Amino acid sequence: MTMSELRRLLDAVRAGEVDPDSAVGRVRDMLRRAPFEDLGFARVDHHREIRQGFPEVVLGLGKTPEQIADIAGRIAARGSPLLVTRTSPEAWAAVRRVAAAARYHEQARAITLPGTDVPRGHGSILVACAGTSDLPVAEEAAVTAEVMGNDVDRLRDVGVAGLHRLLGELDRLHAARVIIVVAGMEGALPSVVAGLVSVPVIAVPASVGYGASFGGVAALLGMLNSCANGVSVVNIDNGYGAGCVASMINHL
Amino acid sequence: MTMSELRRLLDAVRAGEVDPDSAVGRVRDMLRRAPFEDLGFARVDHHREIRQGFPEVVLGLGKTPEQIADIAGRIAARGSPLLVTRTSPEAWAAVRRVAAAARYHEQARAITLPGTDVPRGHGSILVACAGTSDLPVAEEAAVTAEVMGNDVDRLRDVGVAGLHRLLGELDRLHAARVIIVVAGMEGALPSVVAGLVSVPVIAVPASVGYGASFGGVAALLGMLNSCANGVSVVNIDNGYGAGCVASMINHL
Amino acid sequence: MTMSELRRLLDAVRAGEVDPDSAVGRVRDMLRRAPFEDLGFARVDHHREIRQGFPEVVLGLGKTPEQIADIAGRIAARGSPLLVTRTSPEAWAAVRRVAAAARYHEQARAITLPGTDVPRGHGSILVACAGTSDLPVAEEAAVTAEVMGNDVDRLRDVGVAGLHRLLGELDRLHAARVIIVVAGMEGALPSVVAGLVSVPVIAVPASVGYGASFGGVAALLGMLNSCANGVSVVNIDNGYGAGCVASMINHL
Amino acid sequence: MTMSELRRLLDAVRAGEVDPDSAVGRVRDMLRRAPFEDLGFARVDHHREIRQGFPEVVLGLGKTPEQIADIAGRIAARGSPLLVTRTSPEAWAAVRRVAAAARYHEQARAITLPGTDVPRGHGSILVACAGTSDLPVAEEAAVTAEVMGNDVDRLRDVGVAGLHRLLGELDRLHAARVIIVVAGMEGALPSVVAGLVSVPVIAVPASVGYGASFGGVAALLGMLNSCANGVSVVNIDNGYGAGCVASMINHL
Amino acid sequence: MTMSELRRLLDAVRAGEVDPDSAVGRVRDMLRRAPFEDLGFARVDHHREIRQGFPEVVLGLGKTPEQIADIAGRIAARGSPLLVTRTSPEAWAAVRRVAAAARYHEQARAITLPGTDVPRGHGSILVACAGTSDLPVAEEAAVTAEVMGNDVDRLRDVGVAGLHRLLGELDRLHAARVIIVVAGMEGALPSVVAGLVSVPVIAVPASVGYGASFGGVAALLGMLNSCANGVSVVNIDNGYGAGCVASMINHL
Amino acid sequence: MTMSELRRLLDAVRAGEVDPDSAVGRVRDMLRRAPFEDLGFARVDHHREIRQGFPEVVLGLGKTPEQIADIAGRIAARGSPLLVTRTSPEAWAAVRRVAAAARYHEQARAITLPGTDVPRGHGSILVACAGTSDLPVAEEAAVTAEVMGNDVDRLRDVGVAGLHRLLGELDRLHAARVIIVVAGMEGALPSVVAGLVSVPVIAVPASVGYGASFGGVAALLGMLNSCANGVSVVNIDNGYGAGCVASMINHL
Amino acid sequence: MTMSELRRLLDAVRAGEVDPDSAVGRVRDMLRRAPFEDLGFARVDHHREIRQGFPEVVLGLGKTPEQIADIAGRIAARGSPLLVTRTSPEAWAAVRRVAAAARYHEQARAITLPGTDVPRGHGSILVACAGTSDLPVAEEAAVTAEVMGNDVDRLRDVGVAGLHRLLGELDRLHAARVIIVVAGMEGALPSVVAGLVSVPVIAVPASVGYGASFGGVAALLGMLNSCANGVSVVNIDNGYGAGCVASMINHL
Amino acid sequence: MTMSELRRLLDAVRAGEVDPDSAVGRVRDMLRRAPFEDLGFARVDHHREIRQGFPEVVLGLGKTPEQIADIAGRIAARGSPLLVTRTSPEAWAAVRRVAAAARYHEQARAITLPGTDVPRGHGSILVACAGTSDLPVAEEAAVTAEVMGNDVDRLRDVGVAGLHRLLGELDRLHAARVIIVVAGMEGALPSVVAGLVSVPVIAVPASVGYGASFGGVAALLGMLNSCANGVSVVNIDNGYGAGCVASMINHL
Repeated sequence: MTMSELRRLLDAVRAGEVDPDSAVGRVRDMLRRAPFEDLGFARVDHHREIRQGFPEVVLGLGKTPEQIADIAGRIAARGSPLLVTRTSPEAWAAVRRVAAAARYHEQARAITLPGTDVPRGHGSILVACAGTSDLPVAEEAAVTAEVMGNDVDRLRDVGVAGLHRLLGELDRLHAARVIIVVAGMEGALPSVVAGLVSVPVIAVPASVGYGASFGGVAALLGMLNSCANGVSVVNIDNGYGAGCVASMINHL
Repeated sequence: MTMSELRRLLDAVRAGEVDPDSAVGRVRDMLRRAPFEDLGFARVDHHREIRQGFPEVVLGLGKTPEQIADIAGRIAARGSPLLVTRTSPEAWAAVRRVAAAARYHEQARAITLPGTDVPRGHGSILVACAGTSDLPVAEEAAVTAEVMGNDVDRLRDVGVAGLHRLLGELDRLHAARVIIVVAGMEGALPSVVAGLVSVPVIAVPASVGYGASFGGVAALLGMLNSCANGVSVVNIDNGYGAGCVASMINHL
Repeated sequence: MTMSELRRLLDAVRAGEVDPDSAVGRVRDMLRRAPFEDLGFARVDHHREIRQGFPEVVLGLGKTPEQIADIAGRIAARGSPLLVTRTSPEAWAAVRRVAAAARYHEQARAITLPGTDVPRGHGSILVACAGTSDLPVAEEAAVTAEVMGNDVDRLRDVGVAGLHRLLGELDRLHAARVIIVVAGMEGALPSVVAGLVSVPVIAVPASVGYGASFGGVAALLGMLNSCANGVSVVNIDNGYGAGCVASMINHL
Repeated sequence: MTMSELRRLLDAVRAGEVDPDSAVGRVRDMLRRAPFEDLGFARVDHHREIRQGFPEVVLGLGKTPEQIADIAGRIAARGSPLLVTRTSPEAWAAVRRVAAAARYHEQARAITLPGTDVPRGHGSILVACAGTSDLPVAEEAAVTAEVMGNDVDRLRDVGVAGLHRLLGELDRLHAARVIIVVAGMEGALPSVVAGLVSVPVIAVPASVGYGASFGGVAALLGMLNSCANGVSVVNIDNGYGAGCVASMINHL
Repeated sequence: MTMSELRRLLDAVRAGEVDPDSAVGRVRDMLRRAPFEDLGFARVDHHREIRQGFPEVVLGLGKTPEQIADIAGRIAARGSPLLVTRTSPEAWAAVRRVAAAARYHEQARAITLPGTDVPRGHGSILVACAGTSDLPVAEEAAVTAEVMGNDVDRLRDVGVAGLHRLLGELDRLHAARVIIVVAGMEGALPSVVAGLVSVPVIAVPASVGYGASFGGVAALLGMLNSCANGVSVVNIDNGYGAGCVASMINHL
Repeated sequence: MTMSELRRLLDAVRAGEVDPDSAVGRVRDMLRRAPFEDLGFARVDHHREIRQGFPEVVLGLGKTPEQIADIAGRIAARGSPLLVTRTSPEAWAAVRRVAAAARYHEQARAITLPGTDVPRGHGSILVACAGTSDLPVAEEAAVTAEVMGNDVDRLRDVGVAGLHRLLGELDRLHAARVIIVVAGMEGALPSVVAGLVSVPVIAVPASVGYGASFGGVAALLGMLNSCANGVSVVNIDNGYGAGCVASMINHL
Repeated sequence: MTMSELRRLLDAVRAGEVDPDSAVGRVRDMLRRAPFEDLGFARVDHHREIRQGFPEVVLGLGKTPEQIADIAGRIAARGSPLLVTRTSPEAWAAVRRVAAAARYHEQARAITLPGTDVPRGHGSILVACAGTSDLPVAEEAAVTAEVMGNDVDRLRDVGVAGLHRLLGELDRLHAARVIIVVAGMEGALPSVVAGLVSVPVIAVPASVGYGASFGGVAALLGMLNSCANGVSVVNIDNGYGAGCVASMINHL
Repeated sequence: MTMSELRRLLDAVRAGEVDPDSAVGRVRDMLRRAPFEDLGFARVDHHREIRQGFPEVVLGLGKTPEQIADIAGRIAARGSPLLVTRTSPEAWAAVRRVAAAARYHEQARAITLPGTDVPRGHGSILVACAGTSDLPVAEEAAVTAEVMGNDVDRLRDVGVAGLHRLLGELDRLHAARVIIVVAGMEGALPSVVAGLVSVPVIAVPASVGYGASFGGVAALLGMLNSCANGVSVVNIDNGYGAGCVASMINHL
């Protein structure tokens, strides 16, 4: 509509109904504000759609089941893919009523509705973790990556205190284009993995543990201080963030 | 120049040399990028000048005397007022060579060159502190406020452990339009002052003290938890920031 | 009453019933103690009333519904305006019985009873925040500012990760006399806003987020370290405090 | 009994029934271990009894009502005074069955049974606090001091943001031999009080507040960094500890 | 003088020269301000002198030798006792020129000039510490207590890892009226000492140690969490503060 | 089986059915991967079994009763000893159905099923703690050590604030080959114990306490800064870890 | 050589000189250890070379100029590319004597010697920062990326407090395949940048700032809590690490 | 002598020179105090000598070269072994003058003089570390263990980011009776090592690293949260402490 307004203005200039001087003033006003409002809005959204076919992600945390179902219904209605993170069985019960094709991932605490034209990533993403307590975070990462168009390989139960299990999966490590490593407690697994591969490793500290694990801070610090090349870190328990970064890399 | 380009385009439209459709395309391109570059740049700077007559402040920290003198010389050359914070006698020696009218504030560790047309604030700003060790921070706040066009009253040696000294200066507290309070150690002075006045109090934690003062953190926390109304806080030792906020309020 | 006692004493001196020497002793006793008790009390309250028409605010946290209703009833009975913060539906049920004209602000978790002669602020206060999880804190700030006599404009859903939404509201940013910015997570919004305006920005860290947000500490640190001029900070989630500071500035 | 055993041994030596060499051996054995066990135990208890008539205090935290009643019953049965801290109505219900004369202090969350021969302290202890949320801690301190034989004066609602209320109670401040000051948030009250008196001030940080109060840490740091003479500090919320220290000083 | 002004006013009232109404107004003005200025000022200073004969202590930290000598000279000139803490040999060289009778305490980093009429404390103060690295803090406490009129007993080299040394000095522990315990590292000595005596223990964390001692924080936390009765704590390395508190108790 | 495959390959080489070149290739493939998978796996497990007869420990935290019972049933079925830590009565109810001989340790929150051929340690392990609130952690350590084949002596109620109780148990301290000391609050007990014995002391900080105990951090720091020789530390509340280390030392 | 040994063994088996049973034993020995030593070593190094042509990076921190020159000389001698980080002019003086073609990057504090056959990345890497104090870290990232075979675009002086400068460079932001953003103080720049682009953003907190910046912790927390998609974080001041990750992504 | 005094007393009792009653009083006095002084003192020292032949270790930190030489001279003069930690070349120059046979360990910053009759440990102690920056701490541990009578094997350059180097040394890992692992940065090496062996692992965090390593805190937390069995931890950089613990275990 902004563009059609402009068109009308230019038509008026050509027709001599508006003189160039006052047209300059009116365009300058548009220059001053429009790009931030309309064009800007369009461009960013456009970018977001182009890169992932994913205009919006719903963070379930702190929203009521009704609010989540409301948003999800509108997304599903316009045919877009859907991802709700940090959600609950109650929210799932509400969402399935408005989006029958959606699916609930219990361990990941996520709801998804796959999009038909989400561009596919070039390789596969490996999501590795050590223990069963890391699984909710690892699954959030895996489900995020999948719904964004990536093949995901899940590697579980590979902790640094029993290296043989990790070393026994070298083939799978080497087959990945990007690796997400979730680890709690001392958070050493990303360093060990990064020392074995030649692709980027996204480290996710998990808030599992007790005492001096300080809700994942010990793992976070361990990962930030990794002595291995190729490790970068996201927030504690941020499986979604890791899935995003990995997907973005895998789509390059 | 952007505007003159636009004028030429509109003239060409009116003259029928450019058809409206392709003009729409060219204006859309301008809309997409120009405002960020030229107009945007101009506007923000313009704002900054309008509000304080102060287009630029030089943070001396981490700059060599030569770098500081170089920047200061260019500012002085275009007739603008000058403020260099966190500077040193060495930098001062270099600056005075290029800006003879500049002045060095030893305690504030600042260099100033007053501007002629800096707008004056409406009331006066009181800068209060408890001990001599708070003086460098208090003076940085005071000098900043002065060079930005404010009358400044300095109140020293008013600590919470000797209330009579503070209570003996109630007139000066009540005369101020904004009050900056610098305090280290337990940082309680802003709470006490704010309980006695009806104007905003900008609290500045000072890094003085030892042991569990943790370089000003104890004072910072004390100020953030103030039980008095009207207290807001800036970073530890940030006299400059407090002077800016106070000046901005005093110019409303 | 103190003043009338004094009047009776002076009348007695004039009438020769009390000799000046013993009158000096009695006045000295009053000097020694009264000002702290009665006059002092009156003066401070007087100040408080003069500036906001607001003698008392009730912090609901840790009080029972009965206690809150009791205090609220007495405030309402003497015709004063009322503000209860951090309260609950249960307290609201109890308060409405004793103050029928009071109103409950669900999102702000506040109860208000507007005063008839609260002085109006000079301009309007903009309360901006990024996400829906910041709303309770933003609303506490907005409701506080409103009940203290200010016009409030609410700007929501303007986060730094989607600048176009913020830049599209430049007019509203420029129309405000003071701006309150509530932000959780990285707390970057106040810096961006302060770079676009020429009025004071009161930053409120919100405790939303998880992991390394540490209950709002990440946002708090981000705000204290703001590289923009004019930003001062209040405690995490302290919407009330921000509303007070903003109102005080807006009444200058 | 240890002493009577010794007496019997020495009688046997004198009677020639035990030769000095083997008596040396037996005494040496006693020297090696007894003092730690019996004498040592007795002495320390003796000390404790002499100074406060208070051989034992029951920390209710983490004990079941039955456990508390069991201990309390045994203490009451031997006629000793009783103090149970951090307890609950449930424990109180159980204790009153075994110690009918005991009393429950709801706000202090304490159970007491006064002793008849507890030595009295020499002066009175003032317990001051700012707000209603500090009352549980202040009452724990007051009740502890009372059951240990001290006169206690309670001063409430004296915060640093409204100095007139504190200054209006100078007489009570000056009448105390020791002062306990409980404060949360910025924890500035002990500094202000200590600047007004010439007796020791025991500061107790309270865990009230939110955000950057960090559960009393802000108040704790404020008190540790007090710029006033005569302030020492106990743990956050440790009303009991403050009452003990104050009682000990008041009994000197 | 305030009182004589009042007398003149009352005389004028009696003489009918001033009518009671305007006299009420003038007295009210005095009530409003005088007590904070003159009476307040006088009273607090008077208190300070009465209790310790010690109107002023000079914190050497951050002052030049000249500044220290200047203050010290004026104190010595009016015959008052002198205490300079956290000072240096350079400051000492300057002070001895203006106060020949002063004395330098190298280990305590303090300068003293004993006062002739400082009131004596009632008992003796024991200053205990574990290792040689705690000595500067312990000596600052001891020198402070001595110059404030107390007998001081120094107990060194009594650490918790070699209990026999502490237990061998039980007599000296029992002879003290107040005990100051300085300890770094794990800061356990105050707990052990307090378990052996029946007098107040002032605990001073020392910043000695490395790694996870965090500049005395480990010791500070240990002391705040002491499981023994009668322990209160001052800031890290605050020997002066401990000496003050102990002296105040010893003068009760 | 890997070895038998190799045997078949070598037989085929000898028989001339496989030529050496392709055999080299096949062995190289085994070299590249097998050791990590099969041999590696076997060796590590073998080690674990040899040293403690303990192939697996179940951390109950975050597992459902069903999951725990499932794992426990399989362990019991193959005749292995069982240890479930951080478990609950509900899990115990489920486990006893599949492992009738198992035992529930309420205070330790652990389930055990002793193994018949667990090698015995050489001496006994002493588990000492101060208060009743440390008992769950101390019992977890004791139960862990017992099920791993060690004699355990339990020493309770020995705190640093009442040294006589600890000193009265010197014989038991001296009888141990390894000592585990659990302590909360100031965490000083390990230092005192280590000063009295000549064997390794494993210190376990307990999360008991309040305020500045910070969930066991104060005790942890105290233990890390121990001034006594022979102290090493495990995580807060990690009774299991301490039991493991002690058992490992006791089996040397 | 390992492989040739195996070949000789298999030849001997075929020739009947070694019987299969003892051959199994000898191969099992190789299986047990060789892969860790020789094959493993070779493989990992091989990986490292394949991916970056970069077998070794020298961290200059804590090494003497002689040590650095020694290592650098050996690397240069075998024709490999060289990167020394966190080095000094003194080390540079020593290195240039042994590697004449090396180059010193003063701002980055790095020494490089480009390799001839380092594989080139596919796109270009943008390194953005806000202020001059971030330049050493930004340059370390840029120099690292360059020597690892990437085209690097440097974008300076783009802070969040002056958005127009950043928005004026949208083209350069959109041209990059990976973006490294260095920021100190509040660390908000990566969030803003990530909101404008569709490629991965590597955030590097810089230790610039003072007071509550806590040596880069404020920036680190801000980045970890970024509300924008696609941001991952490396350690404070870790320009090298960011360069590595970015190069690894750019080589995919 | 105490015992002979007792003998004389008992002889006097038998001889009728002292009556039992007063003898009871005199023995009770001995009971009350002697054990703490003489017996206690003797026993503890005796223990220390018996277990390591090592009555004293000199912490060089904070002592002048003269003080160190003085203590070292006296130790050497009585023929005892000597260990000075955290010392300097200057102290070494002073010590060698008084103890010609002493030796300086530059990397370990230690001075030793081996004792002739120090009992030997039963196995060998492995000291492992990752990088050259860990060497001072690792050497302090190794030198401590050696002078206390242990065989020490040093394993260097085994980091988790290049597992092949560690796995290539499995034989040396398996040969040790106790293992000390020094690691900075993420501190993951002890977990990996403990997963490969069946002996106790003493973990020593090193303060190497920068940024979020926080002077060794990241490594410390990593080690405390180790997911491997058998790991216990000492203070940051505490090589001496680790050497002590390991030696104590190796002497069992």
